[in-house]
Amino acid sequence: MQTIRFLMVGLGNLGRRLCEVVDEKDTLLRKKFGLALHLVGAADSRGVAYDPNGLNPAHVAALKKKGGTIADYTGVGRRDWDAKTLVAEAEADVLLEASPVNLDQGAEPALTCIRIALERGMHVVTPNKGPLVLAYRELHALAEANGVALRFDGTVSGGLPAINIGQRDMRGAVIRRLEAVPNLSTGYVMDLVTDGLAWEEALEKGRQSGALEGDGSWDLEGWDAAAKLVILANATLDFPAQMADVALTGVVGIDSEELRAARMRGERYRLLAQAARNDDGTYDLTVAPTPMTEDHPLGRLGRKQMGIVFYTDIYGTITAIIDEPNPIPSASTMLRDLLDIYA
Amino acid sequence: MQTIRFLMVGLGNLGRRLCEVVDEKDTLLRKKFGLALHLVGAADSRGVAYDPNGLNPAHVAALKKKGGTIADYTGVGRRDWDAKTLVAEAEADVLLEASPVNLDQGAEPALTCIRIALERGMHVVTPNKGPLVLAYRELHALAEANGVALRFDGTVSGGLPAINIGQRDMRGAVIRRLEAVPNLSTGYVMDLVTDGLAWEEALEKGRQSGALEGDGSWDLEGWDAAAKLVILANATLDFPAQMADVALTGVVGIDSEELRAARMRGERYRLLAQAARNDDGTYDLTVAPTPMTEDHPLGRLGRKQMGIVFYTDIYGTITAIIDEPNPIPSASTMLRDLLDIYA
Repeated sequence: MQTIRFLMVGLGNLGRRLCEVVDEKDTLLRKKFGLALHLVGAADSRGVAYDPNGLNPAHVAALKKKGGTIADYTGVGRRDWDAKTLVAEAEADVLLEASPVNLDQGAEPALTCIRIALERGMHVVTPNKGPLVLAYRELHALAEANGVALRFDGTVSGGLPAINIGQRDMRGAVIRRLEAVPNLSTGYVMDLVTDGLAWEEALEKGRQSGALEGDGSWDLEGWDAAAKLVILANATLDFPAQMADVALTGVVGIDSEELRAARMRGERYRLLAQAARNDDGTYDLTVAPTPMTEDHPLGRLGRKQMGIVFYTDIYGTITAIIDEPNPIPSASTMLRDLLDIYA
Repeated sequence: MQTIRFLMVGLGNLGRRLCEVVDEKDTLLRKKFGLALHLVGAADSRGVAYDPNGLNPAHVAALKKKGGTIADYTGVGRRDWDAKTLVAEAEADVLLEASPVNLDQGAEPALTCIRIALERGMHVVTPNKGPLVLAYRELHALAEANGVALRFDGTVSGGLPAINIGQRDMRGAVIRRLEAVPNLSTGYVMDLVTDGLAWEEALEKGRQSGALEGDGSWDLEGWDAAAKLVILANATLDFPAQMADVALTGVVGIDSEELRAARMRGERYRLLAQAARNDDGTYDLTVAPTPMTEDHPLGRLGRKQMGIVFYTDIYGTITAIIDEPNPIPSASTMLRDLLDIYA
């Protein structure tokens, strides 16, 4: 039995659910993979808990579910440490970093936490796009220099193994074009407007249902899709893209008449992220609301579906779609990444 | 630069095309992965060529394309060796085994070739279902005992990384149900009958177009789909299935009236391979022609499309579909597997 001590930074929708999944899967992981996952430290925005003997992941999840802070974890919770202190001081094998994206704050403190972990020889698993968008190459070089893994399958299209398929199963191919519908929220809001809701009503419904986080602008202005496209380009196209390389049109202000006209034509609008290869091997990156015909591989995505298409020279055209009824698949990508590293 | 010496046994549609792909990708493989692939030996049913200094893969492909035998390869071709001799005598790092499936002959000589290669410490890559259907566990144990890899991503659904996704990206999950349309030929023939062709006409057209090999019975009686399901069960469900475990209904004799009635309902018949999990962790395996509704994840597969669906507990429902216009993706799975081992 191999014991893996991990830190969980960020205890929102993903971090909390990962704790639940680790708790539920404990027996399976021991039996099938010979792995004992020990949560030894956790951090939210208000404090941390650290116990070398292990925290109870189910207890951590329960604490967060009722709106508390990990700093209140009995006996080992503390408000005088933050996430960075935890990552710098704790004895652990892996950091799971699942803070919300905040590019406007330079993806901090997540970026620093990841740097510290890699420098200390910890593997890092993160579904957080911010650090990878800002420092994809730097973080990968740092991981390599320290002989550790940096995995991030959860950054794109929730629980769909889009990064894994692109990084591993497309090797040897030239990817001529990549298309992705990498989030749920933008399609949902456009569907609501097509149904006849006013823009503000659609936003309100999106927020109430949890489909939109905060004011929704990160998703609706297209930043979320652009960030995912940047990561896909770096990870699967070997193209060192940055946010400024993406020609970006969000869904804000989209014409409701055009949405309805598209539906009449049998088409469905989705916020499509695309990378099209040029003859010199660079890619043109675009994110824009796009009417998808029924015959397109992503043309019939429903409310809870995301997908990606790889158009290649030697592996044909490969489409992968996820139906994700709740955030558990997104959170579980961290388990997938852990098993990539250890199993 | 790492040099990889490989043997290619079986020079039909897949083996020949793999030689072409290796030739075309030589520069890319050196530059991107630091790998130099050297074909040092090749075998077809009439003889062998072996040259420790390397054969020319483009020349091998050209020889086969015009209907010749590898035994006629200038200088190093020989009729006194067969595939087994080659694998037993050659100095090589990897065996690629791409003979046609022939379960009726005990998958020989492919099975013996693979055993010899593994015992001699070679990695093995094979899209040949036969040896895996007959000896999945034995061959895996042999590979493990000899510290080498056994990869077979090309056994199911052509160039779709169905095995890879199931083996790697579903780890940690319970797969409650698996559904696959794992070949092209059966759907094609049913579509032709639905179009109004008589059964024999459809068969003839399938044979002429190359969709059906031989008399087509291996595919049409469902054996091909059953073999693929057996491999999927072993590789991705951790369920040690054998052919006898599959409840099998082929497409032979299917009622053309029913096919047309289904089309009128907006449904499309496909030969569906399914594994449904029981409470005790075993799976019920079935292969049967099935009317697929448009809303099913595999409900709109075209003439050149195959797919698979994993219904899981923690990763949602994940569908992967390939559009495969020619046999190159199927052949290229051997390159994918090689890169899995070495890159």
